[in-house]
Amino acid sequence: MSSRLDPVLARIDADLDQALGRLLDLLRIPSISTDPAHAADCARAADWLAADLAGLGFRAAPRPTPGHPMVVGHGGEGGRHLLFYGHYDVQPVDPLDLWQRPPFAPEVQETPAGRVIRGRGAADDKGQLMTFVEACRAWVAVHGRLPGRITMFLEGEEESGSPSLVRFLEDNRAELTADLALICDTGMFDRETPAITTMLRGLLGEEVTITGPRMDLHSGMYGGAAQNPIRVLARVIAGLHDDAGRITVPGFYDGVEELPAQIRAQWEGLGFDGAAFLGDVGLSVPAGESGRSVLEMIWSRPTCEVNGISGGYAGEGFKTVLPARATAKISFRLVAGQDPLKIRDSFRAMVRAMLPPDCSVTFAGHGASPASVMAVDDPAFERARAALSAEWPRPAAFIGSGGSIPVAGYFKTVLGMDSMLIGFGNDDDLIHSPNEKYDLRSFHKGIRSWARILDALAG
Amino acid sequence: MSSRLDPVLARIDADLDQALGRLLDLLRIPSISTDPAHAADCARAADWLAADLAGLGFRAAPRPTPGHPMVVGHGGEGGRHLLFYGHYDVQPVDPLDLWQRPPFAPEVQETPAGRVIRGRGAADDKGQLMTFVEACRAWVAVHGRLPGRITMFLEGEEESGSPSLVRFLEDNRAELTADLALICDTGMFDRETPAITTMLRGLLGEEVTITGPRMDLHSGMYGGAAQNPIRVLARVIAGLHDDAGRITVPGFYDGVEELPAQIRAQWEGLGFDGAAFLGDVGLSVPAGESGRSVLEMIWSRPTCEVNGISGGYAGEGFKTVLPARATAKISFRLVAGQDPLKIRDSFRAMVRAMLPPDCSVTFAGHGASPASVMAVDDPAFERARAALSAEWPRPAAFIGSGGSIPVAGYFKTVLGMDSMLIGFGNDDDLIHSPNEKYDLRSFHKGIRSWARILDALAG
Repeated sequence: MSSRLDPVLARIDADLDQALGRLLDLLRIPSISTDPAHAADCARAADWLAADLAGLGFRAAPRPTPGHPMVVGHGGEGGRHLLFYGHYDVQPVDPLDLWQRPPFAPEVQETPAGRVIRGRGAADDKGQLMTFVEACRAWVAVHGRLPGRITMFLEGEEESGSPSLVRFLEDNRAELTADLALICDTGMFDRETPAITTMLRGLLGEEVTITGPRMDLHSGMYGGAAQNPIRVLARVIAGLHDDAGRITVPGFYDGVEELPAQIRAQWEGLGFDGAAFLGDVGLSVPAGESGRSVLEMIWSRPTCEVNGISGGYAGEGFKTVLPARATAKISFRLVAGQDPLKIRDSFRAMVRAMLPPDCSVTFAGHGASPASVMAVDDPAFERARAALSAEWPRPAAFIGSGGSIPVAGYFKTVLGMDSMLIGFGNDDDLIHSPNEKYDLRSFHKGIRSWARILDALAG
Repeated sequence: MSSRLDPVLARIDADLDQALGRLLDLLRIPSISTDPAHAADCARAADWLAADLAGLGFRAAPRPTPGHPMVVGHGGEGGRHLLFYGHYDVQPVDPLDLWQRPPFAPEVQETPAGRVIRGRGAADDKGQLMTFVEACRAWVAVHGRLPGRITMFLEGEEESGSPSLVRFLEDNRAELTADLALICDTGMFDRETPAITTMLRGLLGEEVTITGPRMDLHSGMYGGAAQNPIRVLARVIAGLHDDAGRITVPGFYDGVEELPAQIRAQWEGLGFDGAAFLGDVGLSVPAGESGRSVLEMIWSRPTCEVNGISGGYAGEGFKTVLPARATAKISFRLVAGQDPLKIRDSFRAMVRAMLPPDCSVTFAGHGASPASVMAVDDPAFERARAALSAEWPRPAAFIGSGGSIPVAGYFKTVLGMDSMLIGFGNDDDLIHSPNEKYDLRSFHKGIRSWARILDALAG
């Protein structure tokens, strides 16, 4: 127990309702970064955060980029300089008809599993980033100052591929290079077991548009004789995996190594229930590479998924059109050893080689970030693990993550800075889906967790 | 030359501007039958036509159906009872951004190839049906009565699969059974050569929805382990054709016969330019079954096309979603000998057999009409051919058509009535596409053609 920590934890407990009110205010701002119609909302969320941080004594401001602003704030003093990263932008909300209430009218709801904060961004990532802000607030309220030297760095383009991030890091290298980055955009291992994520997949996004005839045609007049871009696109997609679930892009697995035995053993010890994980979303059979465990499929193996497809007439009823073009959004989750740009080139060459006569293809890249593996031999990792273990029912675990947190890779490659990824999301948070939520318990114990970690690492 | 015909033709020439004004009025009504939002517009188009026919002396009224109304009118006297069929509903207009002017603000435009009537429905089928109405109007103006006994039968659901048609024919069998049906919903063979279409493909429409996980998932969290319905749908579509372009649905070609030698010879004599036909729409290589001519592909061979596809996120930017479902609209053009319902069953069984674990499929049928072959040994066919040949630069041809005119099949199977399909559309009319047009020449000479055909057949 720490005499400087205990009053901070007490303050967090006493201030929880107010902290919740502040989070709901932030959740009401529809800061969808991928949709240009919401640019002003992203700016509003950045202003809100900069003002909140200034109120805690940070020298904070929204900082312009070619896209949405970054929020940067500096505060506190101490030997170890910590940088905290979160993102204030959120995913789009469609299909809107599947939301039980408006996505940007958040509220706290009672559920059989406890109270939850319901709304777009509750878990990804506004609720998570506010756990750290609220921990700082409690510390300042109790001690009159931050526990150490802290730089806040909040992004507004994480959900749209972070187009401005690398340039911003390069342009503000000295200001943003700290001793260690703390990133709050990941989840618990399970409801009782906190986690530090030490392996992150990378992400390569490709939008593929195949064009055939010069205009939409009548399928009665031309059907049978004219190329149909939807059929061509379907053949491309169907050809991306072989019968064993392996991805067929040439060179895709170059550099991909098998999981080290000790990590495999640690993961096996976690007691992960693959059947329950799939069963929660209505599935029963792992759909990935033959002979791999579910944890491998989602943490340590690369993937290729189709995130969206469109072409021709998709409205009500039927229209016998032979469309001029068809588009798919395809993404690859990458693991250590894979080079995103090499895979992009290989993928594009493969698609071009599959085109029949009279068809052409255009590509639009959406992000190309490599995978990250953290240096867990830094003693800070064990200290943070102990701090987390003190807050939660079960000891914290080092885990992998299927999702991509590209910023961790860029912190390393651009700033030479290591990252520690700690978050309090749960698998049933419905991030990126309708009815996203964040457990009130995640929010409350998340704030307390950061207070403990700051006590262990800061100053 | 006929003394009763010549003044009618003169009247048509003198009245052309007024006829055009009436057509533009009808084109301004956005009667999109497949979109429930336009139901009132369909009713308005039916009212407009019934009033116009009543003005010509027809006993005409819009007749309710469970969908959009039919317009039925009876007029004239004579030995041979002719029924005229056209449809007043039109195709949807998306993609709207490709229209050079609003689709329901029609106008006459000067083009290098002559004057055209531009607007949705100009060629399919409002402009065509009005050629017959205007021929009747001229006849009545000159002679004070129709040239014979004529029943008008105008449908409002042709572009949405004619769901009410068969029941309406059954319920009004005596009233609608004539000696011969005249259908104006087809095209010329080329700009100089009028045509009577004697072979029509049938149409089977299937909307296929594949469902995997219970809700949209985050592709980072679940990608690799969860089924992706877009990938499943792509495999289904890619599996519908073999490498030689043949359709793989079991039993699909049962009953399909090779083209009779004399028809093949007649078609070869037409001098059809397959390269120009494809070149007009930016294509160069026939995409259908290996070893078939382009005319066979579009007139006498069955096809399978994908008319639309959707699933996941298709908006701007990127969303790393693993969608819960994906949908395709798939249609089959059928030829003589194929049973639409048998093919529907076989197709559905084939898709079900392709489903991986955890995926389910639902189907929605959109029409299932057999192909039609006309009895050209009826002497009326040769008389009509002569009448057409008198109006146009080149003699009329008996041709096939890739499009489906299901009503011709139903007239035969439900009413026992033969049909004669005559129309004045051109290949570049952009029917079902943005910027649809109808040549003013088609409209003018189409009216004159019907006056000649009525002179040859009516009374």
